[in-house]
Amino acid sequence: MDCYSPYPTAEESPYLPELRKDPLTGRWVIIANDRAKRPSDFIRQPVPPPAPGICPFDYGNEHKTPPEVLAYRNSGGRDEPGWRVRVVPNKFPVLGIEGDLDRQGEGMYDKMNGIGAHEVIIEGPDHNLSLGQMPEKLIEEVLWAFKERVNDLKKDRRFLYIILFKNFGDAAGASLDHPHSQLIALPVVPSVVRNEVNAAKAFYELKERCIFCDIIRQESTTGARLISETDRFSVIAPYAPRFPFETWILPQRHESHFEDADASTIANLARVLKATISKLEKVLERPAYNFIVHSSPVQEGPLAHYHWHIEIMPRLTKVAGFEWATGFYINPTPPEEAAKFMREAGLG
Amino acid sequence: MDCYSPYPTAEESPYLPELRKDPLTGRWVIIANDRAKRPSDFIRQPVPPPAPGICPFDYGNEHKTPPEVLAYRNSGGRDEPGWRVRVVPNKFPVLGIEGDLDRQGEGMYDKMNGIGAHEVIIEGPDHNLSLGQMPEKLIEEVLWAFKERVNDLKKDRRFLYIILFKNFGDAAGASLDHPHSQLIALPVVPSVVRNEVNAAKAFYELKERCIFCDIIRQESTTGARLISETDRFSVIAPYAPRFPFETWILPQRHESHFEDADASTIANLARVLKATISKLEKVLERPAYNFIVHSSPVQEGPLAHYHWHIEIMPRLTKVAGFEWATGFYINPTPPEEAAKFMREAGLG
Repeated sequence: MDCYSPYPTAEESPYLPELRKDPLTGRWVIIANDRAKRPSDFIRQPVPPPAPGICPFDYGNEHKTPPEVLAYRNSGGRDEPGWRVRVVPNKFPVLGIEGDLDRQGEGMYDKMNGIGAHEVIIEGPDHNLSLGQMPEKLIEEVLWAFKERVNDLKKDRRFLYIILFKNFGDAAGASLDHPHSQLIALPVVPSVVRNEVNAAKAFYELKERCIFCDIIRQESTTGARLISETDRFSVIAPYAPRFPFETWILPQRHESHFEDADASTIANLARVLKATISKLEKVLERPAYNFIVHSSPVQEGPLAHYHWHIEIMPRLTKVAGFEWATGFYINPTPPEEAAKFMREAGLG
Repeated sequence: MDCYSPYPTAEESPYLPELRKDPLTGRWVIIANDRAKRPSDFIRQPVPPPAPGICPFDYGNEHKTPPEVLAYRNSGGRDEPGWRVRVVPNKFPVLGIEGDLDRQGEGMYDKMNGIGAHEVIIEGPDHNLSLGQMPEKLIEEVLWAFKERVNDLKKDRRFLYIILFKNFGDAAGASLDHPHSQLIALPVVPSVVRNEVNAAKAFYELKERCIFCDIIRQESTTGARLISETDRFSVIAPYAPRFPFETWILPQRHESHFEDADASTIANLARVLKATISKLEKVLERPAYNFIVHSSPVQEGPLAHYHWHIEIMPRLTKVAGFEWATGFYINPTPPEEAAKFMREAGLG
């Protein structure tokens, strides 16, 4: 963040920034709470409604994508209209599914073939719905497609990690308007994931408890960062958020792998996800965001120390040199305030 | 990166992505070399020329900033016009310089006071110059100001790390047009820096050589990723770059701390930095970028295992959900091609 403003809007005030440490990753965050912090203080860049145009994800354009690998249908045959949710390989995948995992050196460096899978989950035929606007039943089927694709791909033992994520809006890296999520299966466990899982393991070895179960208990008790609770999920603003209005959805019952979630958990998650995104869309006026399913490496487990969850990151601030260099984030919105705005938004 | 494009511009071709590992951090990068890779294939968003308006960094507005902590002057007294380079505290610092470093628990969490310094290095009175356009002598004085401020601040033993960086352009997080860099002094060594220094130490313990010295030797020998060399600096496209046209400037002689650089090193660095940024401005048409001085923790050393250097990251691509979740970057431009374009740009 580049913070020098020629036109200060706030009075200079007693200045009490706070450094907070994420209990899992050890990442420090500066909660710079004299800065813009109310939702209305952010520069709003609502994600515009989709532009009209030819879309490869609309009904009738099924031939513009690679053949589907999964679809839930009302009618029609493979690669025909009539589907409710459709999963296709990305036409321009970042990794290829064919070949052997050939590891090589190059002088002092290491490389390997880019083996993996890259799929797109098309969230219904309606080109214009945001996640907050979708019927709960559709979100539930999208989550079923997530689960089903992961369970299919993990049979391929070359894939050690499978990441599910959604980019919404240009500022979050989305390049297509039609509602969709993505899946990438990787031949390695990425270092960020490995560090997170290892840190959770270290906590478990010390305490003989899952750190996420502890977080859920503490947040449920103190309440200041709690956004909502059902009998199956807790939605919180984390203690040391990197981004304003960063929001986590955690299943209350310990489970290490998203893909093992049962039917009633998936149904409840659909409701919670819709409500949470609706709140963000209301409070922040349809912001760009990423959401990411954090789950355990697919060839390991079940794990007593890792607890799958979803992290939602609205993209209201720009990540600049300081954050890149240090992994040290500056967040102008204390999570206690973000949680309060989210609670007051209502919407379940 | 959200890569599904409704309007493919490239023919479908034999697809050979490559996974490359950064030898220091262990970070994997996908070099997705069937994608947009020539400079002209990127969506160009040249940073626009500065807009006219009242600027707190212009001559005559010295009272709009906090009092200067350093200035190199032709004329005038403190906080008057006549300076060539001026350093001031950030009016809205992310950390405050007063107070004790009070560490506390909050339930299972950890926090501390936000003690630190946040300063702005104003790179001359001319509101409109980019770094590539500045006289070399001005850049040299900016680098002297960097060095002088770090050497002053490190006397305060509360500060364990001092980061120097520049954000250029809105996409890189800059919010003011007037040429400037920033400095933040921190009461902790950020985890990203600590991991990098520890990894360099592990390499040194294994090989009894500095990994950066090895990189310089390998890149100088193979040449494919070498952009330029002087007798003091090597400029390279790193083997596993996170971003298209990511560029590193490394001093050839081992030195762990930037602030220990001698006068002739600073003079040569000014020349190399100007030439390198000029090439990026030419090849990529005035892109947004961050540059970051990677140096050793200020209270440690000198270190045989860490080697200061500058990393320049043009911001042509958006960082999306996948990269956030995994630390696994997708880069459509092989560094060998970026280096070739940079070499062919000429400009020294």
